[in-house]
Amino acid sequence: MMRTRFQQGLDDLKERLLEMGGMCEAAIEMASEAFRKRDGSIAQQVFDREKLINESQRHIDELAVDLLAMQQPMASDLRFVLAVVKINSDLERVGDLAVQIAQRSLDLSHESEIDIRVDIGRMTTAVATMMRRSLEAFLSAKADVAQAVLEMDSIVDRMKDEASLNLMAQIKSDPERVSSYIDVLVITRSLERIADHATNIAEDVIFWVSGADVRHNVRPGVESTRS
Amino acid sequence: MMRTRFQQGLDDLKERLLEMGGMCEAAIEMASEAFRKRDGSIAQQVFDREKLINESQRHIDELAVDLLAMQQPMASDLRFVLAVVKINSDLERVGDLAVQIAQRSLDLSHESEIDIRVDIGRMTTAVATMMRRSLEAFLSAKADVAQAVLEMDSIVDRMKDEASLNLMAQIKSDPERVSSYIDVLVITRSLERIADHATNIAEDVIFWVSGADVRHNVRPGVESTRS
Repeated sequence: MMRTRFQQGLDDLKERLLEMGGMCEAAIEMASEAFRKRDGSIAQQVFDREKLINESQRHIDELAVDLLAMQQPMASDLRFVLAVVKINSDLERVGDLAVQIAQRSLDLSHESEIDIRVDIGRMTTAVATMMRRSLEAFLSAKADVAQAVLEMDSIVDRMKDEASLNLMAQIKSDPERVSSYIDVLVITRSLERIADHATNIAEDVIFWVSGADVRHNVRPGVESTRS
Repeated sequence: MMRTRFQQGLDDLKERLLEMGGMCEAAIEMASEAFRKRDGSIAQQVFDREKLINESQRHIDELAVDLLAMQQPMASDLRFVLAVVKINSDLERVGDLAVQIAQRSLDLSHESEIDIRVDIGRMTTAVATMMRRSLEAFLSAKADVAQAVLEMDSIVDRMKDEASLNLMAQIKSDPERVSSYIDVLVITRSLERIADHATNIAEDVIFWVSGADVRHNVRPGVESTRS
């Protein structure tokens, strides 16, 4: 009987976290649109959305505490709840990063147009895919889906490095617009950090599902995704 | 009897986390020295240190799982263990950021000298102080010490903004050296992110100690520390 209520609590926790993940995906999408259209009103929507994400984070942490206080969980449930607490932190920071992208897009909308030779759209698509897959891995409890996310991280890192080189070349040839180019640089770095959080989420799914720990190159064939 | 073993486990967990905090403080200190002296061998020590920090993170997470599996904790112990798990993630990322600072310092050591009009030393001192205080707050379970950390975050944010403006002005007047200036920009942003992690740690201490949640402006008088 008690187990049933507890099980219900675990299901609720999972659903809440997935909802929050959905909000983060939407925030990334909106921030990307704010950039594409240089539209301040869309940026504002990201700022509003982030407040909801923050509320959601608090709620999920309290649910986790209540659940663990309710009964002595089995080891696998325990790993699940700890994974939720960790993923929760990552999602909240994804919300912050969406805000950062929206803020820089807002700044760009007030500056004169620059010729951007960095494919932000392509990078956003890659990052959004990593986010979605990491949440799918969580939903389906599939370590192999999580593993695929880890492998995508280096692609985004390369995109970021390439973007940096392009932007530095552009700054050299048009130093007066350095402020706008730095805005774009910060956007690419924010995207790359979202990819890092998706990677962390994938690692936490593996921590939960397999009871193993793939962080920091522990398993052969997994490239380090940090630093 | 059981409670005693559990209590011992909690004490061990606390000690391990403080040890890890100490490693992170040392990594920041070394990264700062690598920057100051443009010394690649010191940068290498930071890279080595980060590996130990990563090992320590895994170990602490496993200790937390084992502890919670051992017995049904009281609510306050539960909050403590969850706070440890969260702080653990933050510390691991501080290690990553120390590596980033060391890496950029290494890059700078291969480039010709630039005139840096940004006081990295002063910013490092502020950030290191925040880190130390947040760990003191954890050690002493003092919410008011944690609160003081939250209030320092805006100072570091201002330093970062000021540094960005200075660096952009320097890039405008010396665009050929943009790559070096961007290295310094990344270092200031890494320092600011370490300050964010210290802020997160302080918030987690308050989550544990007071059972309240001061994140995201919930308490009056606490400025938002994110985004």
